[in-house]
Amino acid sequence: MKKIYLLTLILLGTGLTAFAQDVAQYVNPFIGTGAVANSLSGNNYPGATVPFGMVQLSLDTRDAPDWAQASGYDYNDGEIFGFSHTRLSGTGASDLIDILMLPIQDWRTKSRFSHENESAKPGYYTVLLKDDSIGVELTATEHAGLHRYIYNNTEKIARIYFDLNHSANKGSWGRQIINSQIRKVSPTRIEGYRIITGWAKLRKIYICAEFSKPITAAEMWNGDRCNHDIAVINGTNLRAVFDFGCQDVVECRLAISPVSIDNAWENLREETQGKSFDDVRREAYQQWNAELGKVQIEADSEEKEIFYTALYHTMIQPNLLSDVNGQYMAADYSTRQLAKGERHYTTFSLWDTYRAAHPLYTVLEPERSADFVNSMIRQYDYYGYLPIWQLWGQDNYCMIGNHAVPVIVDAVLKGIPGINEEKAYEAIKQSLTTPHVNSPFDVWDKYGYMPENLQSQSVSITLEQSFDDWCAAQLAKHLNREDDYKFFEKRSGYYRNLHHPDTKFFQPKNSEGEWILPFDPYKYGANGGYPFTEGNGWQYYWYVPHNVSDLIKLTGGEKAFCERLDEFFTSNETSGAKNDNASGFVGLYAHGNEPSHHVAYLYAMAGQPAKTQQLVSFIKKTLYNTSSSGYAGNDDCGEMSAWYVFSALGFYPVNPASGEFIIGSPTVKQASIRLQNGKEFKITAKRKSDKDNEIYVRSVKLNGRSLDNFVLSYRDIMDGGTLEFVLSAKPKGKILELK
Amino acid sequence: MKKIYLLTLILLGTGLTAFAQDVAQYVNPFIGTGAVANSLSGNNYPGATVPFGMVQLSLDTRDAPDWAQASGYDYNDGEIFGFSHTRLSGTGASDLIDILMLPIQDWRTKSRFSHENESAKPGYYTVLLKDDSIGVELTATEHAGLHRYIYNNTEKIARIYFDLNHSANKGSWGRQIINSQIRKVSPTRIEGYRIITGWAKLRKIYICAEFSKPITAAEMWNGDRCNHDIAVINGTNLRAVFDFGCQDVVECRLAISPVSIDNAWENLREETQGKSFDDVRREAYQQWNAELGKVQIEADSEEKEIFYTALYHTMIQPNLLSDVNGQYMAADYSTRQLAKGERHYTTFSLWDTYRAAHPLYTVLEPERSADFVNSMIRQYDYYGYLPIWQLWGQDNYCMIGNHAVPVIVDAVLKGIPGINEEKAYEAIKQSLTTPHVNSPFDVWDKYGYMPENLQSQSVSITLEQSFDDWCAAQLAKHLNREDDYKFFEKRSGYYRNLHHPDTKFFQPKNSEGEWILPFDPYKYGANGGYPFTEGNGWQYYWYVPHNVSDLIKLTGGEKAFCERLDEFFTSNETSGAKNDNASGFVGLYAHGNEPSHHVAYLYAMAGQPAKTQQLVSFIKKTLYNTSSSGYAGNDDCGEMSAWYVFSALGFYPVNPASGEFIIGSPTVKQASIRLQNGKEFKITAKRKSDKDNEIYVRSVKLNGRSLDNFVLSYRDIMDGGTLEFVLSAKPKGKILELK
Repeated sequence: MKKIYLLTLILLGTGLTAFAQDVAQYVNPFIGTGAVANSLSGNNYPGATVPFGMVQLSLDTRDAPDWAQASGYDYNDGEIFGFSHTRLSGTGASDLIDILMLPIQDWRTKSRFSHENESAKPGYYTVLLKDDSIGVELTATEHAGLHRYIYNNTEKIARIYFDLNHSANKGSWGRQIINSQIRKVSPTRIEGYRIITGWAKLRKIYICAEFSKPITAAEMWNGDRCNHDIAVINGTNLRAVFDFGCQDVVECRLAISPVSIDNAWENLREETQGKSFDDVRREAYQQWNAELGKVQIEADSEEKEIFYTALYHTMIQPNLLSDVNGQYMAADYSTRQLAKGERHYTTFSLWDTYRAAHPLYTVLEPERSADFVNSMIRQYDYYGYLPIWQLWGQDNYCMIGNHAVPVIVDAVLKGIPGINEEKAYEAIKQSLTTPHVNSPFDVWDKYGYMPENLQSQSVSITLEQSFDDWCAAQLAKHLNREDDYKFFEKRSGYYRNLHHPDTKFFQPKNSEGEWILPFDPYKYGANGGYPFTEGNGWQYYWYVPHNVSDLIKLTGGEKAFCERLDEFFTSNETSGAKNDNASGFVGLYAHGNEPSHHVAYLYAMAGQPAKTQQLVSFIKKTLYNTSSSGYAGNDDCGEMSAWYVFSALGFYPVNPASGEFIIGSPTVKQASIRLQNGKEFKITAKRKSDKDNEIYVRSVKLNGRSLDNFVLSYRDIMDGGTLEFVLSAKPKGKILELK
Repeated sequence: MKKIYLLTLILLGTGLTAFAQDVAQYVNPFIGTGAVANSLSGNNYPGATVPFGMVQLSLDTRDAPDWAQASGYDYNDGEIFGFSHTRLSGTGASDLIDILMLPIQDWRTKSRFSHENESAKPGYYTVLLKDDSIGVELTATEHAGLHRYIYNNTEKIARIYFDLNHSANKGSWGRQIINSQIRKVSPTRIEGYRIITGWAKLRKIYICAEFSKPITAAEMWNGDRCNHDIAVINGTNLRAVFDFGCQDVVECRLAISPVSIDNAWENLREETQGKSFDDVRREAYQQWNAELGKVQIEADSEEKEIFYTALYHTMIQPNLLSDVNGQYMAADYSTRQLAKGERHYTTFSLWDTYRAAHPLYTVLEPERSADFVNSMIRQYDYYGYLPIWQLWGQDNYCMIGNHAVPVIVDAVLKGIPGINEEKAYEAIKQSLTTPHVNSPFDVWDKYGYMPENLQSQSVSITLEQSFDDWCAAQLAKHLNREDDYKFFEKRSGYYRNLHHPDTKFFQPKNSEGEWILPFDPYKYGANGGYPFTEGNGWQYYWYVPHNVSDLIKLTGGEKAFCERLDEFFTSNETSGAKNDNASGFVGLYAHGNEPSHHVAYLYAMAGQPAKTQQLVSFIKKTLYNTSSSGYAGNDDCGEMSAWYVFSALGFYPVNPASGEFIIGSPTVKQASIRLQNGKEFKITAKRKSDKDNEIYVRSVKLNGRSLDNFVLSYRDIMDGGTLEFVLSAKPKGKILELK
């Protein structure tokens, strides 16, 4: 089959695809799906989905997934509760997990399984349910999940357990089913919905499903009450068991819509009519190959596995939220209609993904980047400000800052087509002047910093908000709004107001302007009640991405700055009780969470690029692998992955709205980025041997010209060309002693 | 002004209006608004609304209205928390209570008031807020509330306190605000919404408001955080204070929509554009006069006050739920579009209102009756069965039975135009065969009664469901569905399976077919956990409205039946601890709740009509008055009122789906019902004097023909004609000793 597929690809392809590898084969969806001792899980899942789709069809190994198994799956588990159609990839909090099905024969609501009988490829997942010996295959389209259940014991009745009550843990976020319905509309068709409040405040999930065999009997449960063979059931705890008689195979295709049952049917029809399970599986794989194949690399097989899985994880979200007919539920919970050609996306874990995932989309997915930006602006239209963390089209205000701003500014300044610049600026300006949760701009403007007694997480917010304001200033400048530029430019320097001249830390102040003492730079905060967010004073010290040279100056010059970085990466100090969010340590650097992500690249901006090369190589080598615990922390909607993708290619967006990337040290032997504009950007890395100690940059040239400042621009990439590294085992300059 | 209005009426009017009195003047909206010692409140409210409108603009004298002050108002209270835009009239449970405004000058969230400075007329309410000396006037259209605030102290700033958190008690029904928004769109315009779960599982109330003066300053509160003069605020506990500078008058018009903010604006525009507060007030009054004037009576002024207030209370609901553009939220929470000319209604408190209110609508509001029926059928379309108790378009399953069935069957068999008979029957058949909450039809069909161990409230449900099945049988017959007719006809006799031959009570059985003993016919049940619903064995004994002659037979013949009725109406037994729902006693008869309502009329069906005449006159005289405690119990969406309207005219629908009315004793001197078909039905009551003891029927003739069986038909009324009573102080036959 694979050969046929490749042939198809070649026959359908343009000039580019002539070079296309089947790169989807390198993806290992089990990476990041389970922690091992003393590690954090990536909270990824192995199930079936298509790039940026609405449906994520995967197994739940927990009855009520929550924090540590947010995606529903834990590689360490041995039981499957069923296969549900939506979920988040890599988050630290759980939601979605809608509409669960489990094929059974005896009456049961879970089954044992083992990894020997489990495998997954992009768009496809299969497992054997041991208890009844039922094979399960899953694939997906954007709005639909397709199930193929193989009942090995054909002398027993083939059944499907169908659960509308199953969800992420009801104990979190006041989660509660508001109402739900299952309706049998014909022997082979059911439909219904569930309305639920949770991390997303209101989700309406309308469903329709078609079975390949007629239902011969049905138990419909409303709480403890069972009804046999009734047409419809409504309630807040609905489950059903559908019998199909003795069958060897039962297939089911289930589509969802956030708008209506009619739309769910239309979604199903448009995406699956006339197609077999295998057709859809092939198309899903093909879609992944088309997306992943935009970057062709040469590297060790293990590196390829890590790289393409990471790239895959960056493309699981943001998720489509509009139906095939263009209807969607807006941020004000009303039903709206998109203009023809528009698509509405959600799942914006922006505190994470503005750093590297969104800059990556501007390279690989410029058209979709515009869709993302326009989707965020739609929240502004109906909510009044841009998203902080947008889930199912609604803000859950998770984390801090207003990092839709860098994403939008970056997209506009990079010239991504399809964005109304004036409208984008309006949304940004309103979002950065209208006070909202964790963004009290009245306080910001009055004090020039966030006083901890008026706004908790004050130091982290002060640093991150300064950056967002800098981004706004750049767009104001681009649009010749001089007064606004000055306003935001002034704000962008507010980080200075919390820089303690003696300790050289960013430290909390109260509203009297007094330092809050004592100050312990090792002590961690979580998500409130402390000046630092999911980190400590050491980790947040490095957060002035828009003015690294000023941070260097504040620290006492390049030498002092690099010494301080040396201490950061080599300190053994562990007095600060780390919390759940801190993992993947290199000294005090915690690669398992986002505040650290840009820090290794700062050496290159302070005259000691060898240490950047050493550290990013060390991090890639020690904190990524192909196991279920292949990430050092939660993948956070692909952000941990995006760091890898950039770093493996040899550069990283330290300031994610600058259009600039700082050169690190590539993993690949060579790479080719096939750009949407038809051009190609090549990366080559010349090494003397195959040894993996050749990580130091002897020279780096763009189209033959030396990149002495270690800065590559977005324009450089998009114009096409070649970035040539010559690598060596010997650093140019001092390096660190790493343990 | 009133004179001008009358002139307008005459000028605009048809032939009928030439006789029209200004009957709206007789309405006293304070009747039923507050209990006195040992009474129950009608739970009515005095605020402004138009007939069957979406908006009910009235004051809340409780911060969080609940059971005993379900409409938000208690005449015994002395403080006003503000004026909110939606509520229920007469229910025992509270919900709605949306979007509160209170004019203030000093910062406060409530104000004292007294009844001396309060008055109300249909569509108009006025009060003086004492603390700041602010006059308040309210009026309404179908979708909008209009406020006129007169600030007597013009040296202080005129303010409006605006509260999106205010609601019925958050402690009931898991009530919780899911999200809400206030947005200032111009100095004189705001908009927003709140999404809330409660007794109605999901309500989206979109709002827009226009002020007559510009907002000069605004405090916007999100929980404890206050923001000044910001454009928009989102959250689950939103309040605002709008300043208007020093003003003598500030007007506000606020419209709502269950669909979108855009629709709210369209509703406001369509209904109020170019109209002054006084124009709208006049139109509201005119609408009430047009509706109430369909029945013109001559009677004592006190009787007129009770009568027209009762008629007014029957027309406060069902409530419009569709927008002016025909959009509405369907029972599956999706947005739907009505066909041109259709209107979608809700607030179907059917366990109450199927008895008399809906039969009354078939006489006075045939066109709207079709709208009501079609609205219920729309629930069937998207929910799978007809409503039990429908609030904001959704079933809350309050109470028992499936009494949309009698309402629909009655409307169809009476020939109300605009109902698809086949569709109506489909909805009924599905609703009576698909098990749902409190309606386990699998149990019903298996046992031929509800066994208490399988379905609580089993005796009450068995009795009421038998009636609903009888109704279904009649429609099946009408549509020549012989098999279905037999099926439902058989079920309609299931009440017999719980009739105990020795005790002559309907008594509970278990699923083994055994009587559950001991049985205490005086002991009350509430809403679950006992075989009787809001009543006891005595009160439920009389519930076979579709086969009174069989009940007479089961009781041992007419004599035994009447003796049992005598005991019912004269017993002093009070051993059965009565609950909140029992009040308005005449012996064991409890007029304060619906199960008793038809019982006084049964004498006339068992050969002792004088006792019916005596009792209905006694009940009208002693259990209705013009005070705030003018009802003997909750008005229950106009059902207590509908009993009065029929009984004052001299007849009552004992079987509310039979098209027949049983003759009682009229209160009116004469009455004229102006029918939508252009005909007129007159009632005359000849008495020798003005004394109110002339209550006994000497003779009753329809168009000159004696009504010896004391049965009047719907057809008789709709054909027009005259019902002539000759009344006397002397009964024909024995009467009771009443205390």
